[in-house]
Amino acid sequence: MRQKFTLITLGVKDFQKALAFYEGLGWKKSEQSQETYALFPLGGIILGLYPLQELEKDTMLSYQQTVFSGMTISYNATSEEEVDAVMQEAERLGAAIVKPAQKAFWGGYSGYFKDLDGYVFEVAYNPFWKINDEGNLVM
Amino acid sequence: MRQKFTLITLGVKDFQKALAFYEGLGWKKSEQSQETYALFPLGGIILGLYPLQELEKDTMLSYQQTVFSGMTISYNATSEEEVDAVMQEAERLGAAIVKPAQKAFWGGYSGYFKDLDGYVFEVAYNPFWKINDEGNLVM
Repeated sequence: MRQKFTLITLGVKDFQKALAFYEGLGWKKSEQSQETYALFPLGGIILGLYPLQELEKDTMLSYQQTVFSGMTISYNATSEEEVDAVMQEAERLGAAIVKPAQKAFWGGYSGYFKDLDGYVFEVAYNPFWKINDEGNLVM
Repeated sequence: MRQKFTLITLGVKDFQKALAFYEGLGWKKSEQSQETYALFPLGGIILGLYPLQELEKDTMLSYQQTVFSGMTISYNATSEEEVDAVMQEAERLGAAIVKPAQKAFWGGYSGYFKDLDGYVFEVAYNPFWKINDEGNLVM
């Protein structure tokens, strides 16, 4: 098994609204997207949006709402100002602010929001981590 | 906001066991990892393992167990045989098989497992999707 995940799929309750949220961030979906399956290439991984009931069928699991599933997805910004701008943009598009952006004990600056389906996203600026020209964290 | 996620963090109940699972897949963590914060570079995104209670503190959210949070993370294999091998490897390391690998309606072959903390992973072979030399899906 290579050291890789290829795709994150978010099961969404209202496909058109979820699509509008991610497109509202300025993101462009791949031409390989289908009518109710949006694929956003993120450089090394794809974000997929898929109707929740279809994902339930495919996994053979029943969705059960949770306050916090224990998993977060992060966007590393290049400055504190960018963190603030992204948090505001997400809120404007209907996201719920979980934790307003603030100084973090580890020396950075971060906040959390939930998207329209309740998935938890961190927006962070970490002055100790480098971001390369492709927008990736350098490890 | 650039079209990017930089990091997926899994809050884990037993850090050492979770680490053993992902290292058991043959994955190597970054030297930037810390004692209870493992970082696995996946080429374009990082997988982070972090104690669940620490992630609760950081998000200010209380973890609530769920059968299925609605989100899946996929590993695209390069053949049906690789799908079978990865599913078997995950099970050997303690994963629970959610759906045994099988032919899918969309023309591929896929299965699902839950890791030690219940996060849902798909292992799939899609004959219509290309994987490049870096191991990424081509979109």
